[in-house]
Amino acid sequence: MTQKQSPKQSTWLFGVHACLKALENPHREVHQCFVVPIVYEKHAAVLRTCSNITQVDKAFFHERFPTIVHQGIALEVAPLSAQTLHDLALQKQETAIVVVLDHITDPHNIGAVLRASAAFGVHAVITTERHAPQDEGTVAKVASGALDVVPFIKEVNLVRTLEDLKSQGFWIYGLDEQGEILSRRSDFSGKVAIVMGAEGKGLRRLTKEHCDHLIALPTAHTFTTLNVATATAVTLYEVYQQLYKRQDV
Amino acid sequence: MTQKQSPKQSTWLFGVHACLKALENPHREVHQCFVVPIVYEKHAAVLRTCSNITQVDKAFFHERFPTIVHQGIALEVAPLSAQTLHDLALQKQETAIVVVLDHITDPHNIGAVLRASAAFGVHAVITTERHAPQDEGTVAKVASGALDVVPFIKEVNLVRTLEDLKSQGFWIYGLDEQGEILSRRSDFSGKVAIVMGAEGKGLRRLTKEHCDHLIALPTAHTFTTLNVATATAVTLYEVYQQLYKRQDV
Repeated sequence: MTQKQSPKQSTWLFGVHACLKALENPHREVHQCFVVPIVYEKHAAVLRTCSNITQVDKAFFHERFPTIVHQGIALEVAPLSAQTLHDLALQKQETAIVVVLDHITDPHNIGAVLRASAAFGVHAVITTERHAPQDEGTVAKVASGALDVVPFIKEVNLVRTLEDLKSQGFWIYGLDEQGEILSRRSDFSGKVAIVMGAEGKGLRRLTKEHCDHLIALPTAHTFTTLNVATATAVTLYEVYQQLYKRQDV
Repeated sequence: MTQKQSPKQSTWLFGVHACLKALENPHREVHQCFVVPIVYEKHAAVLRTCSNITQVDKAFFHERFPTIVHQGIALEVAPLSAQTLHDLALQKQETAIVVVLDHITDPHNIGAVLRASAAFGVHAVITTERHAPQDEGTVAKVASGALDVVPFIKEVNLVRTLEDLKSQGFWIYGLDEQGEILSRRSDFSGKVAIVMGAEGKGLRRLTKEHCDHLIALPTAHTFTTLNVATATAVTLYEVYQQLYKRQDV
């Protein structure tokens, strides 16, 4: 709760979802919050927990953040500390879902994958340090609060990460157009890792070789391509139903 | 196949998917195509059907379309002619899916809804003239060819359109967080219209009153919001499975 932090150690979040999720995240260090009264009143229960909060008018936002879509709330925070797969202690879980990104670098897509992952109970989104997105601001904005809900993990080597997941009891499913068609008959249970490749390129050969199963989406024959984040969301919907809503099967 | 068209009657499409789908669309009037040899060779079967095609080098694209992500192919086309719901003659169909947009105006979201709709066999995406996206170029780019696969229809009055769909035998499902949770037990059959509201605002009261059913996505309690195009895609996956893949149920 200091304003003496150097700029490198702080970043701004905007928008109601992103700011509230950051305030609710016990691992997130918050520096300060600016908010307009109408937003404060609506979300007082959460915003009251912030010890350095200033109510301002719209003109303040217009002057200080002229080009930002802010929805009347801005939060200065420290970046989240880096986590590894092992920090999550998923060994002990009976069921879990992780999403693994194979050379996906577009910050919009990664933000959208994080958002879908948060909505479908994913325990971590994993990428490699070398292919981590440069533009973390765009990731956070598109993720719309999901970065404070789902750990976003950067590992060194993707193949080693897949081996690691296997040794923790995960079944590795790669999305590939040659795979078995995803349906309610796909048999997801226990711990599931979904590996997504870049649009157009798909999974790399070595990544594919480390998958236990390949799955494809049941799309119309005349138009088979989905955006990578959309494809992730559809797959997660099916996996989530099978792992956590067994009574509906 | 004339270059005398006034600029108002022509628009440029870029990228392999968008250009190929436009060339395959019998309702699309094509003016000319520029393509690099490597792309031409890969897709010769379709590109050969274009009577005004010029093979060019990368430098041509760099000079003429410096800021565009073009993937080595550009197609000058006439805009698609406007269609109405009645042009589609869906009365006669036994099964059909349409997506109805209630005050969704963001061109990225509309493009993404169109793309997901094409992938899941949707017969039309319907919006209102007043809330049609201004930036058709962005819609086309994000739709990635889907505009040439799924009719994008602009009607005058949304409530009248919903009544019209009902009289054609459609069941109207509105997405609403208070709705029944979407699952494989949701009973979609026959003709299905999915109505999507804007993110945050949701369906308008009058729209909601004209729905036969309200459905909600089965998201995690800790993070309930999905992007509108992602939510559309997940819903369409379930509807598509139930309508066309009954053997998998």
